[in-house]
Amino acid sequence: MLKISKKGQLMPESPIRKLVPYAEAARARGIKIYPLNIGQPDIETPDVALNAVRNYDQKVIAYSHSAGNITLREKLVEYYKTVDIDVAADQIIVGAGASEALLFAFQSIMDPEDEVIIPEPFYANYIGFATNAGINIKPIFSDIESGFALPPIEDFEKNITEKTKAILICNPNNPTGYLYSKEEMESLRDIVKKHNLFLIADEVYREFTYDGKTHYSAMYLDGIEENVILIDSVSKRYSACGVRLGWLVSRNSLLIDTVMKFAQARLSPPTYGQIAAEAAVNTPAEYFVKVKEEYLARRNAVVEGINNIDGAFCPNPEGAFYVVARLPIDDSDKFCQWLLEDFNYEGQTVMFAPASGFYSTPGKGKDEVRISYVLKVEDLKSSIKVLDEALKVYPGRKQA
Amino acid sequence: MLKISKKGQLMPESPIRKLVPYAEAARARGIKIYPLNIGQPDIETPDVALNAVRNYDQKVIAYSHSAGNITLREKLVEYYKTVDIDVAADQIIVGAGASEALLFAFQSIMDPEDEVIIPEPFYANYIGFATNAGINIKPIFSDIESGFALPPIEDFEKNITEKTKAILICNPNNPTGYLYSKEEMESLRDIVKKHNLFLIADEVYREFTYDGKTHYSAMYLDGIEENVILIDSVSKRYSACGVRLGWLVSRNSLLIDTVMKFAQARLSPPTYGQIAAEAAVNTPAEYFVKVKEEYLARRNAVVEGINNIDGAFCPNPEGAFYVVARLPIDDSDKFCQWLLEDFNYEGQTVMFAPASGFYSTPGKGKDEVRISYVLKVEDLKSSIKVLDEALKVYPGRKQA
Repeated sequence: MLKISKKGQLMPESPIRKLVPYAEAARARGIKIYPLNIGQPDIETPDVALNAVRNYDQKVIAYSHSAGNITLREKLVEYYKTVDIDVAADQIIVGAGASEALLFAFQSIMDPEDEVIIPEPFYANYIGFATNAGINIKPIFSDIESGFALPPIEDFEKNITEKTKAILICNPNNPTGYLYSKEEMESLRDIVKKHNLFLIADEVYREFTYDGKTHYSAMYLDGIEENVILIDSVSKRYSACGVRLGWLVSRNSLLIDTVMKFAQARLSPPTYGQIAAEAAVNTPAEYFVKVKEEYLARRNAVVEGINNIDGAFCPNPEGAFYVVARLPIDDSDKFCQWLLEDFNYEGQTVMFAPASGFYSTPGKGKDEVRISYVLKVEDLKSSIKVLDEALKVYPGRKQA
Repeated sequence: MLKISKKGQLMPESPIRKLVPYAEAARARGIKIYPLNIGQPDIETPDVALNAVRNYDQKVIAYSHSAGNITLREKLVEYYKTVDIDVAADQIIVGAGASEALLFAFQSIMDPEDEVIIPEPFYANYIGFATNAGINIKPIFSDIESGFALPPIEDFEKNITEKTKAILICNPNNPTGYLYSKEEMESLRDIVKKHNLFLIADEVYREFTYDGKTHYSAMYLDGIEENVILIDSVSKRYSACGVRLGWLVSRNSLLIDTVMKFAQARLSPPTYGQIAAEAAVNTPAEYFVKVKEEYLARRNAVVEGINNIDGAFCPNPEGAFYVVARLPIDDSDKFCQWLLEDFNYEGQTVMFAPASGFYSTPGKGKDEVRISYVLKVEDLKSSIKVLDEALKVYPGRKQA
């Protein structure tokens, strides 16, 4: 009998996708599903990006530079200037999505059994990248009661061992939407400096901030220039998830040289994605004004809607386009499956991501779901109505 | 001091790309360089593929299925029928190039310290993928005197240990151009069956066969249906290296389920590459007739040209668009660098890949270079002339 690897056995199934077969079966029964389980926005990709691809006139679609086209990297340097981040083109390595960039970062700074500390709940695929790299995630619990603010720095401190090589944050956060403050970022700076760790900052939702708040990048932090590894992407910023174009930024030249070796081994990032990304940087400012207005209205609809449901609670996060909500349920995996298998309200149901998949501590997140507010306000309101009705009849409902 | 990983230190620099700075300096001095170092064809990407991307009219470039669009995978099933390979869409997982597909295969069947046997010389990036996966390559020497035929099966046999999980071949071969015969493939079948190993077959050059020979796919082999992992790509077939679109095919459902978990962790393969690939399958047959005629003429020009040089030897391979030639030189790394740094003939020089980078056994390939015949015949003839003149004055020339 041919065997697969231990690593292959350990790789997690995507918690976001494991409900897909149940959704397909529901659709086959004629049920309308509101898909709030995945971070795939319905926002249109900017025309400037789409047109750049349509007008690309090379006759041979050739390998690009392994670090990405220099014209793209120079354009990204321009983009960063607009958000007060000063970097050079040779401090950027482009990948097939932030996914590849983050995996390169993990592999470049950690060997099997090394550890990265991440506040939980965290983006589920981090578990996949960590398993892939053979490293361990040390989760630090962040509390829904505080809106998922940065956990006390002592909690980080006591989890640092000689195997700890990095702290990873996602800011604004997926799945919680939490936007870290300047003070929180500074406390992270102090601890990575003290313990000589890398600070990996996944800032792919940088532009999505609300209530007048602005994003405080890890790249602003003084004194840890060599420690910060920025992970970024066009996927969410320009609603272009499918082009698979992300990148890594670092002022640490040894790190860049190392990542470059991983980048060379896979030859180059996707050409068309690079063309789209380079053009996307020219997206007019009003695009973001409209998009942010839209997301703000959506967030308000979701947060208000959830908090009006008896026994449910949702913080009011200031970034990204996700919330993690607490529901009066026994088990979010069961509940989300039940919504698809056994429930409909007037022929409709809703798909959430069970929050358990965003925690690595077993048992956490069992009464929480992640909601991606990637549909129009009207659809979100209908979704909340469906949820409200579902909770009235769900057999595993918890009583107050 | 922040440290990078051991793995990052071990990752090889691309032997194909390490000469690039010398080439840039030569160009800056006004030297014309014939780039025969890299497998980037000058052949045009088929219009049908380019136009499909130009006409793609989705408003949101969204994530695709993690295994690739079903329409693409169904089209690939059609393609395989044309080469007598019977597979199903759910036996295919699409990746960002054959590179990603091969890395997924390595990770799915091997854990760190496991071993894969590969006839050497072999495609240099296999070392990068192996280092990335933490596994070891056991090279089996194939001899330029035999044209790099499959080494005796006893040489495989005596290198099999309990850590051996797979044999990997590239057919037709990069870097040697060697086309494995049906008999050679059958001897591989027997050994993988006997020792219960995976047979990974990198067949991205399938269409490029000459002298009336046809390709014998690993997928034709009876009795090892569960063992074979096919790696494939549009990069070379349709001269579309930049789209980063490759895939893996296997009839082993446990393997497919495992690879799928790695695929899900990085969400999806590039959308535009998938659009190009799906359309490329419709490339008219005459495209290949012309392309093969062109490559055949090129191969003949290179093989004849090299064999006319005093002290040089080049086999006459029947596939792909590479040859490995033996030259009367002390050290191919030094020689290839010297060609760029210290030599020109009438303002021209030539860039080869030192063959040492295609061997993992230290010291092998020192008097060999890989030549990619990716330029027009006239340019190839000029390149050979440059080589001939260079060998007359190269200080490290070996005397007969």
